[in-house]
Amino acid sequence: MAATPTDVKEYPNAFVFKIDVPGLKSDQLKVQVEDDNTLVVSGERKREKEKDAGVNYIRMERRLGKYLKKFALPENANTEKISAVCQDGVLTVTVEKKPPPEHKKPKTIEVNVA
Amino acid sequence: MAATPTDVKEYPNAFVFKIDVPGLKSDQLKVQVEDDNTLVVSGERKREKEKDAGVNYIRMERRLGKYLKKFALPENANTEKISAVCQDGVLTVTVEKKPPPEHKKPKTIEVNVA
Repeated sequence: MAATPTDVKEYPNAFVFKIDVPGLKSDQLKVQVEDDNTLVVSGERKREKEKDAGVNYIRMERRLGKYLKKFALPENANTEKISAVCQDGVLTVTVEKKPPPEHKKPKTIEVNVA
Repeated sequence: MAATPTDVKEYPNAFVFKIDVPGLKSDQLKVQVEDDNTLVVSGERKREKEKDAGVNYIRMERRLGKYLKKFALPENANTEKISAVCQDGVLTVTVEKKPPPEHKKPKTIEVNVA
């Protein structure tokens, strides 16, 4: 699963990561933040155990195994406000943006008459 | 989506196709049989329409577009008994096998005394 493709989009208020994770359910995925600036997504797709001895593998293209992906988060990402949803084999992680620093009011210096 | 990976397994009573189709729901997929010997799976993953003008695409790895895959079915596949289920972005198509031809009872020829 190493090549799991990802889309990343920047919205006015958030960054949205969409990762294809077919066959994985929410409880098989882990979303974490490392060092307050790295988004870490991990999971594992295991091969179904076959009870039947009489199974013949004709074609095996689907990648299995552990999946780990790290994404550097921009400085304005709010790592306290991250949500993740998994639906139809697509994991969506939304990272809100920090509000922009407030504009300081211009300070007016009175011009005195010399 | 052209490179959608597939596993094919042969069980004693059926052939099972597992296809990764992340992001697709059952109603976006079509499973058909052509010429009584070809399994045809098709679907389309469309890019989500963005209402927001202020969206910035940072990374775009997920393949979108039309998907069409054909699989030749073995002679003993029963094309009348095909079922398909889509869950967590994985489509599973089960094609039952025809029962093996019945063994004709050996015919006994009476040996007459000459």
